[in-house]
Amino acid sequence: MHKGLLLVVSAPSAGGKGTILGELFKQNSNLCLSISATTRFPRQGEENGKQYFFVSREEFQELVDNGKMLEYAEYVGNCYGTPRAPVESWRAKGKDVVLEIDVQGGAQIKQLVPDCVSVFIVPPSFAVLEERLRKRGTEDEETIQKRMDTARQELEHAKYYDYLVINDRLEEAVADMQAILRSEKRKYSRNYDFAERM
Amino acid sequence: MHKGLLLVVSAPSAGGKGTILGELFKQNSNLCLSISATTRFPRQGEENGKQYFFVSREEFQELVDNGKMLEYAEYVGNCYGTPRAPVESWRAKGKDVVLEIDVQGGAQIKQLVPDCVSVFIVPPSFAVLEERLRKRGTEDEETIQKRMDTARQELEHAKYYDYLVINDRLEEAVADMQAILRSEKRKYSRNYDFAERM
Repeated sequence: MHKGLLLVVSAPSAGGKGTILGELFKQNSNLCLSISATTRFPRQGEENGKQYFFVSREEFQELVDNGKMLEYAEYVGNCYGTPRAPVESWRAKGKDVVLEIDVQGGAQIKQLVPDCVSVFIVPPSFAVLEERLRKRGTEDEETIQKRMDTARQELEHAKYYDYLVINDRLEEAVADMQAILRSEKRKYSRNYDFAERM
Repeated sequence: MHKGLLLVVSAPSAGGKGTILGELFKQNSNLCLSISATTRFPRQGEENGKQYFFVSREEFQELVDNGKMLEYAEYVGNCYGTPRAPVESWRAKGKDVVLEIDVQGGAQIKQLVPDCVSVFIVPPSFAVLEERLRKRGTEDEETIQKRMDTARQELEHAKYYDYLVINDRLEEAVADMQAILRSEKRKYSRNYDFAERM
């Protein structure tokens, strides 16, 4: 049986990652979503094990010390990390695992799990990104400009990713993701055993 | 506009390459087939420019000397080569080009055109390959064993290819090829310009 893929997905904010992944999960029953652990407090409506695993700083440190985190980082005073066990057991069962991660984490994962497949989702242009941010209507002008600056910086990291998916039309972007999952399973490097056996 | 892909496809004989490519061409209007040049004489029913470009030894040598062959090889006293011009002009127009080639040629192309995408099509097992050869009913026992030996040697070259497509069910193999074409266009290395422009 094929070992499942680890699909690492990053995008600048308002890049449309959530919508694309939502659709991908709907179409693909073989996908599992990695849930991060965090030391930050749950927000209204968040449930333990759904958006995040909420743990104490001591519990988090213990997970790190025992090698139970695939990667982790501190961000605005809180720790975030990817628990190793579910990712590895799903992959061993042939399930593909999706890991949503910020751009710094994405570069780190590639070094820790060299056989992961990393995808950077980009808007078709900065103009479109700005328009999308405005349409949300949730942020003031200053925040929008700050987010645009961040997006520009984040795009610098795109070069560390295997694939660049352009979020122009949703169905095309989802089809791109499906094609990436399918074709990666056909990579010679993932079929070494098959060729050797023959 | 995207530069078209160069898709290099090899398979052991009776690997089912012809059927898979036939179906791929039916489904995909953006594909062009590279026609080889050869010094061998046309067989009954073969037309110049259809199965091959039939050229004299002098013409062939001139094409080679003027750098007009992407790759070439001599095989049982005849020369075979891939004319460079159609491949490059199609790719420049965004057309994907399929190049059917033997396993030795496949390894050579990868060095000459590093951005090509190479696919090795394999039968699900040697038992299936043998069965397919027998079903054809066109070869005697000795020829079948010789073809099996050749197939075993050819499989040794699979490791130089990017992808391994298993020809078990036709529609799955064709879908694999489509996924490879689609996902390769999303490779970061092929979208460097887009990321830079943004």
